[in-house]
Amino acid sequence: MLAEMITVGDELLLGQTVDTNSAWMGEVFATHGIALHRITSISDDAEEIVAALDEARARVDLVLMTGGLGPTRDDITKQTLANYFGMELRMNEEVLQRISAWFHGRGLPMLPVNEAQAMLPDGCTVLPNPRGTAMGMWFDAPQDGRSQVVISMPGVPYEMKGLVEEEVLPRVLSKWDLPTRYHRTVLTQGIGESYLSKIVHEWEEDLAQNGVSIAYLPAPGQVRVRLSAVSTDEGAAQRRVDAAMEAFLNLAGEHVVADGDTSVAAALVELLTQRGETLTTAESCTGGAMAAAVTSVAGSSAVFEGAVVAYANAVKVNVLGVDASDIQRHGAVSESVVTAMAEGARERMGTTYALAASGIAGPGGGTPDKPVGTIWIALATPEGTEARCLKLGRHRGRNVQRTVLECLAWVLRTARSRNTH
Amino acid sequence: MLAEMITVGDELLLGQTVDTNSAWMGEVFATHGIALHRITSISDDAEEIVAALDEARARVDLVLMTGGLGPTRDDITKQTLANYFGMELRMNEEVLQRISAWFHGRGLPMLPVNEAQAMLPDGCTVLPNPRGTAMGMWFDAPQDGRSQVVISMPGVPYEMKGLVEEEVLPRVLSKWDLPTRYHRTVLTQGIGESYLSKIVHEWEEDLAQNGVSIAYLPAPGQVRVRLSAVSTDEGAAQRRVDAAMEAFLNLAGEHVVADGDTSVAAALVELLTQRGETLTTAESCTGGAMAAAVTSVAGSSAVFEGAVVAYANAVKVNVLGVDASDIQRHGAVSESVVTAMAEGARERMGTTYALAASGIAGPGGGTPDKPVGTIWIALATPEGTEARCLKLGRHRGRNVQRTVLECLAWVLRTARSRNTH
Repeated sequence: MLAEMITVGDELLLGQTVDTNSAWMGEVFATHGIALHRITSISDDAEEIVAALDEARARVDLVLMTGGLGPTRDDITKQTLANYFGMELRMNEEVLQRISAWFHGRGLPMLPVNEAQAMLPDGCTVLPNPRGTAMGMWFDAPQDGRSQVVISMPGVPYEMKGLVEEEVLPRVLSKWDLPTRYHRTVLTQGIGESYLSKIVHEWEEDLAQNGVSIAYLPAPGQVRVRLSAVSTDEGAAQRRVDAAMEAFLNLAGEHVVADGDTSVAAALVELLTQRGETLTTAESCTGGAMAAAVTSVAGSSAVFEGAVVAYANAVKVNVLGVDASDIQRHGAVSESVVTAMAEGARERMGTTYALAASGIAGPGGGTPDKPVGTIWIALATPEGTEARCLKLGRHRGRNVQRTVLECLAWVLRTARSRNTH
Repeated sequence: MLAEMITVGDELLLGQTVDTNSAWMGEVFATHGIALHRITSISDDAEEIVAALDEARARVDLVLMTGGLGPTRDDITKQTLANYFGMELRMNEEVLQRISAWFHGRGLPMLPVNEAQAMLPDGCTVLPNPRGTAMGMWFDAPQDGRSQVVISMPGVPYEMKGLVEEEVLPRVLSKWDLPTRYHRTVLTQGIGESYLSKIVHEWEEDLAQNGVSIAYLPAPGQVRVRLSAVSTDEGAAQRRVDAAMEAFLNLAGEHVVADGDTSVAAALVELLTQRGETLTTAESCTGGAMAAAVTSVAGSSAVFEGAVVAYANAVKVNVLGVDASDIQRHGAVSESVVTAMAEGARERMGTTYALAASGIAGPGGGTPDKPVGTIWIALATPEGTEARCLKLGRHRGRNVQRTVLECLAWVLRTARSRNTH
């Protein structure tokens, strides 16, 4: 079974919107064993839509379309599809009630253009969209004796995602009678995809014959590793994936920071909550980004007391109690200063752990001794304080991001290895 | 002159990478009056590459390709293009020296697969890429008497962007002898695209006949508005854009936070640097995100002293000097507490301005009195302190982001309106 994606919208071609829908769709369908064959982005133009549809239908069984279903004049996907399939637009009373309830619930007036969104092609299956006013449309269009389906969805990502999860995917899996899949994901950090793949090379070669497939899903500084197996017997698929994951963890477990499809900050908040422990940060070069990462997790207030961003040296001295003569002697980017920052923060905030970072994020401020990318980090715990020096690159944003990930993973590993008191 | 984009890579179709290159390219070319006609993403497969190329060449004059130029086995774009255009891969000694210098500069060993990146199609124009080891390739391929060009670039965004700015764009503009364009961008905040468009509706209707075009470039909570005009006489284009911009500012100036293609944080750092003023933040619900936004700007250390993330009430009391009985009486999310946070931070850090935020970011923690999205913000200045209450939505990440933007814009406007002392 082959599928393609067509995204419709002038804003995609003019670069006013990044098409994130296609990558999301690609990952979701790949998870179910259906790799997208092609992604095509076109403008809100009837001829373009028809041409792209004809081309895609000559290649694949399922065409997934997003975009062009809004209420304004430039949204013409619905009318174009009706014409294409020789259908009439008819008022769908049930949908009209849904749309009117949607506006009512938000206390907004319903305009005639929104009423018109309930006019739908009379031969399609309507896929209800509780998140908005543009419904999904499923067109059965068998060709030359084989099943073929065209599905049109709104381009607003969270409406589209809801539709895929609740309507599109269950129907597609049942129509093509696709087998169940079982997945497990772990989050690795600090090792590139190619190095990781090298470590597990032999194991990876045997995967296929064990009926397990692997996906490396990279993000800056991190790689998610997803194992999956497909079987009509879900128990068998799970056993195969679990066995393969155990072998993977034996080889590369030291690079794994979290089990599951999660983030290092979320894994940290979860672990500290379980352990009843707390954290603070004292940040110079990361400028609050560590604190922002932790507090982006809902429920982080249970483990995060607060933080001090000590950009200026005066703040390091006055708020964190760093010795001014230490800064004079060793510089703010030094082992002794970052250690004092972590210890000062831990003491003042009364937390289990304190992280500190002081470095030269760039692009300016480097010296031959301490080039841009030199970043000292420290972790204070009840057992004492450790400091390490990172040698990163020249890009300010990436240096901050990598320091944050490195620091959060450090607390996570330390907390895991300590005995619960 | 028409152009299309082809992005090559299995990772795009499997959703392991979001294709941000196409949107960037779309915006850059649109800025020069060339709208992309179509974007096609295909896998690392020779047949697919040839098919997509044939199709694109039947439609447009310029085909921009990214991806598939890496050193590993699955990267086959270069070999496929050489075959397609009937060229031989030959060792390019100048490029070999470039690549070897690239590795030398990083203290990394050069592997045979990297040497092979200097093997290039003998009939193409090499576009040097100082940021990496995969060069750009320009293929002149006139068809039926009209010029046609295919350009292949690496998929790594910052390498691709450098190549476009330094090599591709100047050559394209000169080859097709395109007229100069003049642009001006302003950053608006706190007003949606459709509301903005409504305010300036009549003005917008006259734009086209004045030879000026407008683009709304939305980002969360913000819309960049770009006016542009094209002319063989650059002075005339500039006068038209400036006149239109003046009229726009008369209508919607209150929503404009910065002139130029910038961010509110960058505009703030620039203004405070000019004025010799400083800033600190005292953050509860934003959890360090305000500090992180300011310090993401290079050079921010000139104006940013530091910040206190006061997540726990004890930190609000002990570090910022908030009255514990005030928290008891009014709650941490209140006018009096957020005012005390701003004043305490300004006093302790000795800055010109202090921003504070305390609110319920969600998803938990709401009460009937103070539902999720209730966020108090305060700004302390030499003239006194003001506080305001924002009523935002239910989404934690968006609430934090909108609060940050609102606060930074507030300081920016306040600083602009104060007399320089």
